[in-house]
Amino acid sequence: MYNEKMSEHKPVVVVVGAGFGGLRAVRALSKLPVETILLDRRNYHLFQPLLYQLATAGLSPGEIAHPVRGILRKNKNLTFRLAEVQQVDLKAKQLSTSTGVIDYNYLILAVGGETNFFGLDSIARNGLGLKDLDDALAIRNQLLNCFELAMQEPDPEKRRALLTFVIVGGGPTGVESAGAISELIRLVLVKDYLNLNIKDVRVILLEATDKLLTGFPAALQEAAAKRLWQKYVEVRFGATVTHFDERQVILKSGEVIPAHTLIWSAGVRAAGLIDKLEVQQARQGRAVVAPTLQLPEYPNVFVIGDAAYLEADGEAMPMMAPVAIQMAETAVKNIQRDLQGQAPEAFVYKDPGSMATIGRNAAVARIGNLQFEGFLAWAAWLVVHIIQLIGFRNRLFVLINWIWDYVFYERAVRLITPYANRSRSQEP
Amino acid sequence: MYNEKMSEHKPVVVVVGAGFGGLRAVRALSKLPVETILLDRRNYHLFQPLLYQLATAGLSPGEIAHPVRGILRKNKNLTFRLAEVQQVDLKAKQLSTSTGVIDYNYLILAVGGETNFFGLDSIARNGLGLKDLDDALAIRNQLLNCFELAMQEPDPEKRRALLTFVIVGGGPTGVESAGAISELIRLVLVKDYLNLNIKDVRVILLEATDKLLTGFPAALQEAAAKRLWQKYVEVRFGATVTHFDERQVILKSGEVIPAHTLIWSAGVRAAGLIDKLEVQQARQGRAVVAPTLQLPEYPNVFVIGDAAYLEADGEAMPMMAPVAIQMAETAVKNIQRDLQGQAPEAFVYKDPGSMATIGRNAAVARIGNLQFEGFLAWAAWLVVHIIQLIGFRNRLFVLINWIWDYVFYERAVRLITPYANRSRSQEP
Repeated sequence: MYNEKMSEHKPVVVVVGAGFGGLRAVRALSKLPVETILLDRRNYHLFQPLLYQLATAGLSPGEIAHPVRGILRKNKNLTFRLAEVQQVDLKAKQLSTSTGVIDYNYLILAVGGETNFFGLDSIARNGLGLKDLDDALAIRNQLLNCFELAMQEPDPEKRRALLTFVIVGGGPTGVESAGAISELIRLVLVKDYLNLNIKDVRVILLEATDKLLTGFPAALQEAAAKRLWQKYVEVRFGATVTHFDERQVILKSGEVIPAHTLIWSAGVRAAGLIDKLEVQQARQGRAVVAPTLQLPEYPNVFVIGDAAYLEADGEAMPMMAPVAIQMAETAVKNIQRDLQGQAPEAFVYKDPGSMATIGRNAAVARIGNLQFEGFLAWAAWLVVHIIQLIGFRNRLFVLINWIWDYVFYERAVRLITPYANRSRSQEP
Repeated sequence: MYNEKMSEHKPVVVVVGAGFGGLRAVRALSKLPVETILLDRRNYHLFQPLLYQLATAGLSPGEIAHPVRGILRKNKNLTFRLAEVQQVDLKAKQLSTSTGVIDYNYLILAVGGETNFFGLDSIARNGLGLKDLDDALAIRNQLLNCFELAMQEPDPEKRRALLTFVIVGGGPTGVESAGAISELIRLVLVKDYLNLNIKDVRVILLEATDKLLTGFPAALQEAAAKRLWQKYVEVRFGATVTHFDERQVILKSGEVIPAHTLIWSAGVRAAGLIDKLEVQQARQGRAVVAPTLQLPEYPNVFVIGDAAYLEADGEAMPMMAPVAIQMAETAVKNIQRDLQGQAPEAFVYKDPGSMATIGRNAAVARIGNLQFEGFLAWAAWLVVHIIQLIGFRNRLFVLINWIWDYVFYERAVRLITPYANRSRSQEP
């Protein structure tokens, strides 16, 4: 390898994935006497919690995606390689990547999750997921394009189908997307489309169970549903989608909803690489790890974040950034202990709480034992997310955008771009 | 058409293209007793003069592209239609578009230009043009990807070819791109790629004639070449490219330059729609217009901007924004005169000057009879471009980005995005 910084003597730790978990692992590894190689197929870290704001024209890609090399410039024991991991030979301690083979002493798999369509082919083909930049831009293009087509559509039934937006799944992504789409239309697009009859517009959130935001306290689940309803989102419970063909959504009940747009936020599963490992997988394709985050048969391999399956009190760890970050710290600590000849420690999750925003002045939040909703939760959400963004410039730009939106009821990035349309998002 | 605002009595003016000329025409038409329909296949106006800064990771799409509906909200006699014009029946006064047929009384074709590869197939297939957002993002992806691949390339010859960037054409776009790429590498990327040997990097500007910036005063042409050279751009004159296959650039002289990247800014021609009109075309496929900007056989049809061919003092009008804007004003004035039964007036171009930037503190500018270069020209360039941007928010964001870059030697948007790679730009 060109200009390889690796020494013959220091152990090599390979980290796969530059998400929340991978970045934290690399930072923690910078204090250990090891050589670290970080692999990702993207050259940026994506701040996924704000991806829905890209999809709803409020933010730009450059504001929530940050180049990995920029973040990690000060890590002197690190080599970043832009490459896709194709295969892991756990026995030989070797990775095959799109740019060559890499040997490791320790491996941390922080590969994250991908959209889970549960084998529903028509939805995988015609629906829109929301996991990466191009997904978000495809949704933005689709929303705006539907409005442009609707303005030129003489048939009222076809027009209403163009203006019906179905979001599937009542988790944080579905709730936040539904609220943001409804506000985009009712506060912003009405100014662009003066001939729009707002009564032609429907925003529908379909949830298969009878509650939103699984894992939140019941009072906040109810509050979220109520707030969404107040923002003219039709929140539907017990609604299971079975088919979507770009013209209509079909539910298990037989109900048919004419709609051109279906956003699928009803499922996440571990990234496909995990399937290739030939290790034990639990629900959602996640790799079963020991309490120390090691693979049971390969103690030099750690799986963290969305891709790892670990139970606490009989419940699987949620697929959330705080879990990935804390797991990264435990994994690196266990590598350090192993280097020092000590036994690894078990992972203990310290739950910082969770929050979801519904729109202007409306959010739900649980921090420790505190629960709150409405303006206070919304303000807390804003502060937490601004702080967690990487880079002062990104914080400044997001903040200006948010203030702009709040004061002027505006979403600046209402572009239908020539790239990232619906057909792009189908590529595996 | 849905909610058509058109009256039976007012004449209908259709404007095709929401570039500099088209927007100015629509604004001028808002004061006439007409119904205006603006057609564009994009929903945004693109500030093309800053497109090269998108290609070199300094700016984001949302900062130089502005939604047309947002710009023209106050124009009450306007209908915007997102549609591609497929055919114009000049005799029947009718347009066929991707969303239906439109009749007009007057037509203003402000369709602009597109990259002209002069029939060089290998370059059209493998080279990168710079006319729209996806072109710019394809260049950004390509530049950054070459660095990532070079860092993992053990063969020094292959590595140097990955790090050789050839820009063809010494007009403003070529000069500005070459300067910006050289500075991106030498001031910014050196911080990201600590193992980079800067001596492996070449930025080459190839110009077929013996001067840059045709149309500029000779002293400024020389100054531009010198400033580029000082920024380590190899400026080569009398160099005509005949072939490029993604691995090497071949010149007419037989010279071979190993390089993975060729940016083609050596030619522009009128947009393809002009070819379908069956009217007289001059050089670059531009439609020959009368001095009044009318098509000689169709006095109700005006062609303006890059797509129009008109001579003044034996020289064709340059393909520049000020020409398009002034032509828009003349065309609308001539529609007004026609409505009032008056004869049309001839177009007279008032040359506001021209400028091109080479990099930090370096530009060349001619304003009226004044010529200057260096820091003063650079400062003038900044002010003129900030003022001409649309929207206070865009001005603010571009300004912050520029200050950031200037102070910290930084280009924030160093993203290799999953969309708009090289193969996308080949599509048309």
